[in-house]
Amino acid sequence: MHSESNKILVESIKRLFRRDATSHLVKIVKKTHAADLALVFESLSNYNQRRLFDLIDDVGMKGEVFSNLEEDTLLGIVEGMNVDDIVEVLDLMPKDDVADLLGRLPVEKSDDILEKMKKEGSEEVEGLLHYEDDTAGGIMVPEFIALEEGITAGEAIRSLQKEHLDVEMPFYLYVVDANGKLIGVSSLRQLVVVPPNTPLKNFMTTDVFAVKTDMDQEEVAKIVARYDILAVPVVDDTNKLVGIVTVDDVIDIIREEATEDILKMVGVGEEFVETKSIFSNIKMRMPWLFASCVGGIIASFIIGYFQSSLTKLAYLAAFIPVIMGMGGNIGVQSSTITVRGLATGRLSIRDLWTVVSKQLLVGLMLGLFYGFAVGVVAQLKYSRELFALSVGLGVLSSMTMAALAGSLVPMTLAKINIDPAIASGPFVTTAIDIISVSFYFIIATTLLGI
Amino acid sequence: MHSESNKILVESIKRLFRRDATSHLVKIVKKTHAADLALVFESLSNYNQRRLFDLIDDVGMKGEVFSNLEEDTLLGIVEGMNVDDIVEVLDLMPKDDVADLLGRLPVEKSDDILEKMKKEGSEEVEGLLHYEDDTAGGIMVPEFIALEEGITAGEAIRSLQKEHLDVEMPFYLYVVDANGKLIGVSSLRQLVVVPPNTPLKNFMTTDVFAVKTDMDQEEVAKIVARYDILAVPVVDDTNKLVGIVTVDDVIDIIREEATEDILKMVGVGEEFVETKSIFSNIKMRMPWLFASCVGGIIASFIIGYFQSSLTKLAYLAAFIPVIMGMGGNIGVQSSTITVRGLATGRLSIRDLWTVVSKQLLVGLMLGLFYGFAVGVVAQLKYSRELFALSVGLGVLSSMTMAALAGSLVPMTLAKINIDPAIASGPFVTTAIDIISVSFYFIIATTLLGI
Repeated sequence: MHSESNKILVESIKRLFRRDATSHLVKIVKKTHAADLALVFESLSNYNQRRLFDLIDDVGMKGEVFSNLEEDTLLGIVEGMNVDDIVEVLDLMPKDDVADLLGRLPVEKSDDILEKMKKEGSEEVEGLLHYEDDTAGGIMVPEFIALEEGITAGEAIRSLQKEHLDVEMPFYLYVVDANGKLIGVSSLRQLVVVPPNTPLKNFMTTDVFAVKTDMDQEEVAKIVARYDILAVPVVDDTNKLVGIVTVDDVIDIIREEATEDILKMVGVGEEFVETKSIFSNIKMRMPWLFASCVGGIIASFIIGYFQSSLTKLAYLAAFIPVIMGMGGNIGVQSSTITVRGLATGRLSIRDLWTVVSKQLLVGLMLGLFYGFAVGVVAQLKYSRELFALSVGLGVLSSMTMAALAGSLVPMTLAKINIDPAIASGPFVTTAIDIISVSFYFIIATTLLGI
Repeated sequence: MHSESNKILVESIKRLFRRDATSHLVKIVKKTHAADLALVFESLSNYNQRRLFDLIDDVGMKGEVFSNLEEDTLLGIVEGMNVDDIVEVLDLMPKDDVADLLGRLPVEKSDDILEKMKKEGSEEVEGLLHYEDDTAGGIMVPEFIALEEGITAGEAIRSLQKEHLDVEMPFYLYVVDANGKLIGVSSLRQLVVVPPNTPLKNFMTTDVFAVKTDMDQEEVAKIVARYDILAVPVVDDTNKLVGIVTVDDVIDIIREEATEDILKMVGVGEEFVETKSIFSNIKMRMPWLFASCVGGIIASFIIGYFQSSLTKLAYLAAFIPVIMGMGGNIGVQSSTITVRGLATGRLSIRDLWTVVSKQLLVGLMLGLFYGFAVGVVAQLKYSRELFALSVGLGVLSSMTMAALAGSLVPMTLAKINIDPAIASGPFVTTAIDIISVSFYFIIATTLLGI
């Protein structure tokens, strides 16, 4: 659904709420896909969110809406429901989503819910609650199709007709030994293509990618993306198959990680802050700004040191903004290219000197160009050659250094296993500011003898 | 494969090349997954790339390596091959990847190749070449399973055993009418679950998501991600089924778009520039820096205007960096949060005033805090109350304005359908620089009467 048609849907639903047109609303809700309906919830008041949720007839759809809601909205709706109604919905939801939700509820409430859930389901959910949120164990679903190696294709098809009806992505058939250890994989497709009396072990693939429960979710996502697979099996330390991570969850992870990278680059925390309170916004943004403030104050002390030169030649100050601005901009370009290159795997820390020397050369050439341009402007305005030369050299040195630092710092951080995304942060940019301004004043006062 | 084990693989292969240990290399190549092998190519010289490629025995694997290579590497290898060898590989590759590759070769060469390809395949590829690269038509594969509504589940299974063996993702079965128009969808799963004599039309889902060939790839990716589907059917203007877009390609698109967003934010083009030449690096980064340079020069004229005040009070200049720096930093934070929020759909243009007033409030509170802090430093250093007050007010106004502009500009751009990512670019940041510096000088000269 396009954002345009989504907007229309939200507007209609709001209008119908104002008119209390319940029967009309029920009809719209029935026709709408759960993923679209979940988006509508985000635009409603908490009161209308609860009203709309009550208008959903089908419990399965309630579950799908739950799976698609943002955390805050979900908790708001669950808060107003009694435990029996919650349990009814959760019984029909994928177990990984249930575990996610329960992990966010107060302990007493989640215990209550677990107790009342269907026994089989609640055991699986409890199992999932033990894994860290951002590991393979935390994002896997415990429902999958596991068959023993001895059975035939025909038997496998017959078992699919009776069992495993709740499996989310029934495309891979995992083959396990008598102890539940993963030994191979096959697909529905192969099942219908081979003669019915062929045993699984004759046509299964034994070369199967599997991940451990404690693998970081980002690594899991990379594997699924790299090998173009629809689901990856998750095994415990004994190689026992315990769940699968499906490609739809991998898509969500890839998106989250990209957002995390971007936000980290400007020092606003790792998670999305927009929906957070003003107070936590301030708290998260404070440290980055603090570092930048300290840097600015250091720069003010340096300029203060050249006070007597400034008194003699006041327009020395006029070019501080352009020198800082050009260095800052080319620095953020270099660091962004480098950080993103490392994150997507297009750059490798092995290429350190290739990358850095390329950025240095780019900085040098752009620095020569813009140093010349700004120097000409300074000469035209103040007609003083040595001053114009100082300004030009100030721009050149600021841009060259910034391009160098913007690539060298993230590459070095990556080499010593620190997240390079912090390199575009205030420490580096502020350091460049301070050095640029110092260079400019030293060059100018030396050349002009003031 | 982890980057660590990938590194080991690259090192071993390089060592074996130096030793000319061909038989050992052939063994390693056989054991390695094509996606991993493709990564190795990126770290080799062009000469060794061709040697390694020749060591691949299996033509199917050659095709998989082709599908996984970066564009430059791929073109380098293809250049050194004769047309017959290329055709042999392409015949076994997914048609969308073939079309991508041919689109990048010189016309004579791609015509040659098309002529020699198996007739059926070359027609499909030629069809794909007509669509724009970044539309549903450009990223779809023309192989899919389409069955007529009248046939039964049993007949469908039998047809799968003979036909459609080259389909990449045989999980959805599309149901078409006599004219090839899409009327429903079913799955392999349903096929094996229903009694064999049930006609498709009795159990197919008629509510099927389909996209038009000219839909932007980003929209297609959003649909696949939103509805958690593995493939989306692509139809032409007459609703005839012409291809499918699979989830593995969608993952690549989501990654590309995130990179594009990040790079656009710092003005280094829309595509990844790191692997491009120094010259195109410079060309792409030039305009952003140019805008920033013009802005800096304007700021220098404004400061030049206050030349006489500066002569009287030289340390006025000392706080220019901190005022510009604090505004710049909080501005880039606000615009990043807003731009990324809009891109991920977590913020909507309907929330304009909520978003902007929140950012304004955050800017105001942080501005009060840091304005006070920097003012205190100025007072301690220069012991002049009105000057310290000017500095504090300068920081406050700069931060407040930057937070406001950082959210208001991207929201407004999105509202009038311009890509908000450009808002963090030099126009906005430079404008804030200029206004901040002007405010500071106006406040200071007024308060101090100089």
